[in-house]
Amino acid sequence: MSEKKLITPRKLAGFMELEPSKQIIFDEMTEKIKKVFKKFAFMPLDTPVLEYSEILLAKSGGEIDKEVYAFTKGDTNVCMRYDLTVPLARYVAMNEPTLTFPFKRYQIGKVFRGERPQKGRFRELIQCDVDIVGLEQLPIVADAECVNITCEVFKALSLNALVHISNRNILFGYCESLGLADKTIDILVILDKINKIGREVAMEELEKIGTTSMQANDLISLTLKQGTFESVISEIKDLSDNQLYQKGISELTELHSYLKAFGINENSYTCDIGIIRGHNYYTGTVFETYMPEHLDFGAVSAGGRYDNLTGYYSNKNMPGVGVSIGLTRLFDLLDKNNMLKTKSTEIELQIIPLGDTLTNCLELQAFFKDRLICEVNYDNRSFKSKMKEANKKEIPYVLIVGENEVESGEYSLKNMNTGEQITISKEKCATFIKKNNLLDRLTDLKQKYQKKASE
Amino acid sequence: MSEKKLITPRKLAGFMELEPSKQIIFDEMTEKIKKVFKKFAFMPLDTPVLEYSEILLAKSGGEIDKEVYAFTKGDTNVCMRYDLTVPLARYVAMNEPTLTFPFKRYQIGKVFRGERPQKGRFRELIQCDVDIVGLEQLPIVADAECVNITCEVFKALSLNALVHISNRNILFGYCESLGLADKTIDILVILDKINKIGREVAMEELEKIGTTSMQANDLISLTLKQGTFESVISEIKDLSDNQLYQKGISELTELHSYLKAFGINENSYTCDIGIIRGHNYYTGTVFETYMPEHLDFGAVSAGGRYDNLTGYYSNKNMPGVGVSIGLTRLFDLLDKNNMLKTKSTEIELQIIPLGDTLTNCLELQAFFKDRLICEVNYDNRSFKSKMKEANKKEIPYVLIVGENEVESGEYSLKNMNTGEQITISKEKCATFIKKNNLLDRLTDLKQKYQKKASE
Repeated sequence: MSEKKLITPRKLAGFMELEPSKQIIFDEMTEKIKKVFKKFAFMPLDTPVLEYSEILLAKSGGEIDKEVYAFTKGDTNVCMRYDLTVPLARYVAMNEPTLTFPFKRYQIGKVFRGERPQKGRFRELIQCDVDIVGLEQLPIVADAECVNITCEVFKALSLNALVHISNRNILFGYCESLGLADKTIDILVILDKINKIGREVAMEELEKIGTTSMQANDLISLTLKQGTFESVISEIKDLSDNQLYQKGISELTELHSYLKAFGINENSYTCDIGIIRGHNYYTGTVFETYMPEHLDFGAVSAGGRYDNLTGYYSNKNMPGVGVSIGLTRLFDLLDKNNMLKTKSTEIELQIIPLGDTLTNCLELQAFFKDRLICEVNYDNRSFKSKMKEANKKEIPYVLIVGENEVESGEYSLKNMNTGEQITISKEKCATFIKKNNLLDRLTDLKQKYQKKASE
Repeated sequence: MSEKKLITPRKLAGFMELEPSKQIIFDEMTEKIKKVFKKFAFMPLDTPVLEYSEILLAKSGGEIDKEVYAFTKGDTNVCMRYDLTVPLARYVAMNEPTLTFPFKRYQIGKVFRGERPQKGRFRELIQCDVDIVGLEQLPIVADAECVNITCEVFKALSLNALVHISNRNILFGYCESLGLADKTIDILVILDKINKIGREVAMEELEKIGTTSMQANDLISLTLKQGTFESVISEIKDLSDNQLYQKGISELTELHSYLKAFGINENSYTCDIGIIRGHNYYTGTVFETYMPEHLDFGAVSAGGRYDNLTGYYSNKNMPGVGVSIGLTRLFDLLDKNNMLKTKSTEIELQIIPLGDTLTNCLELQAFFKDRLICEVNYDNRSFKSKMKEANKKEIPYVLIVGENEVESGEYSLKNMNTGEQITISKEKCATFIKKNNLLDRLTDLKQKYQKKASE
């Protein structure tokens, strides 16, 4: 190797790569989310990472956004998917005749965005999406189901979260009723950033694009309405008799009745007319999830209703509603704020040979294999450095197997946290560890409960 | 939309995209494999799909193989990973100081190969890999662990499989002992395809590259040795006293002692000197898995020992051993041969409103949510077409919720397979379905057992 020039091992910037002890936690979160999706009878879909550019770039008329990884292979123009929604649209348009509608699918997978890497921005992201797609029609209860799933996901992740819900028809209709229909997009862009720029600047900007100061004031007041569905709806329902506006009010009211039927905790959602969502394709219900104790995280999931998902690919009208949880970003935020449950290994037992007992240790591993997550430390190092390694890996129990132990069938089991050591048979060992793990978990639960109770 | 030209929805050739009912089975297989990997104390790793071209193409000196998806983004040359081994090498070289060795990781993820699509070839493949990487040294027991895991994976998938095992030092050493060391690679290429081309053609080809006919004959005879470890090793161990040859024999013997200690069923593995593996980086143990009843599937998993995994990136010697299961290809073969367990839905119950009972149905769904996988059929269609949909989705039970039922708290539960209908409370309904599912599973198990017993 001495002649060869070494290549410095490095990874592309903006790509998350976790150490295994953190990957375990990431995977656990993925599993919890998947479990919620499945519980609500969503079916899995796995579309390819690569698609024809023509398909993925339909929205921009084929123009390549600089954030999209696009390239040519042979004579085919391809793109890496930048979300899971456009591939879903392609999938349902392509397979419409064989699908049962409403089509409810979940997909958890990587998407790619070649933006300039910066703090908290990733180029490879794992998104967890559920969508419900109807054929010709899709009732509002589907929107409620997506909100319900969002609440269940954050509950499953033990994260305190609040889903802010609105309906875009309210602001659309209000603009229309003010005679500002042609300025709607520009107005929404300004209202969308009201929390960042503040009321004063928003006023100025609205007036700059041609609203009167009274219109600007009214628009901002409406946007700032937030509270329980009952209070917000009763405050705003008579502000305008515009048809679109009233459609928004009535959809929001219907949605709320379903949220109550689902029995969602009322502290988990709020009505917030300021939820706008940048994406232009949302056409009704829109919602974003925030963590009240960590508003600096921004929205940790978002979703809404789009009335013509497959418009670029099919003449059939297929309305949809969905929610997307950006797990990579959420995980990164939790990690940076020390909010991850620490758990550096899933290994429950390490068997350490002492003397010439390697094959005996393998036999023991085979005995334990369906009872415990267990490994043999077969490294050719000293006993002492093996113990050190087990410690570094944060293994909770170590079974020491010397030649005398093999003869007697009684082994030394060491609790690596307390240092306690007992002598035990293989049969009792598995039960002992399982029992102690259970006790540990019960203690954790008890502490958690006491902490909650004292709050 | 009438002015807009539609884009025909299509998917790139060579990319697997399963309908949800099959994706469920694929995901179940992934879960089973992951469970085995975890059981043996392997830790998860998830490396990025994209890497610097310089890193991924180190082996070929930076030259782009036409099978690799390579492109430029901004001024960075990047490649999509074509396997999980090279990223692992980059990862351990990069993180060596903080890792505990032997480093045992599993990774299940997509790899990309832009080869011309043809029957049974995919451009996007899900690979399931485990590898064990040592620092300076790695004992042969690690090789045995990889074979053991391979056997456990196929057992977990209920597939009858046979792991064919050899050690490349045997043929390396034998070539050396025949004075053919400089022709070793060419010889191995010919011997590797002996099953395809037959003994006669192999003889001719060997002689063409300069072996005598006796040498050719001896090489072929050695290559064709297959059987139990005891029989093969006793037959070949004295054929040569070449040092490399004897190293191969001794490693194979040691490996076998560990396989026995693991208690692996002896019908699950065989010694087969003809296992060569095209890849030049294997340096000792090599193995491939075949399904005896489906030899036409070819190798369904493969692995081996490589003595210098990180050679391009680090001066430290890091030997490794691993196994890779190509799940996409295996799934496709099982599917095409009708060998998949059919299971088109995981949904256990569908609730169908009859009349104005939608919110009652949502309340019922909330009641069932931690007990059953359950959905409400809230489609705006007729009751009859809802029943038809439930049938199409192969839902096993349907709960019919009319206004009278809501009043009485007793609902009609219909078994969609038998047509039987009973009246039941929500509390009893969950237990009833769970119990019947359990009974179905027991019946399946009983039939499976009886079938096995009669064989």
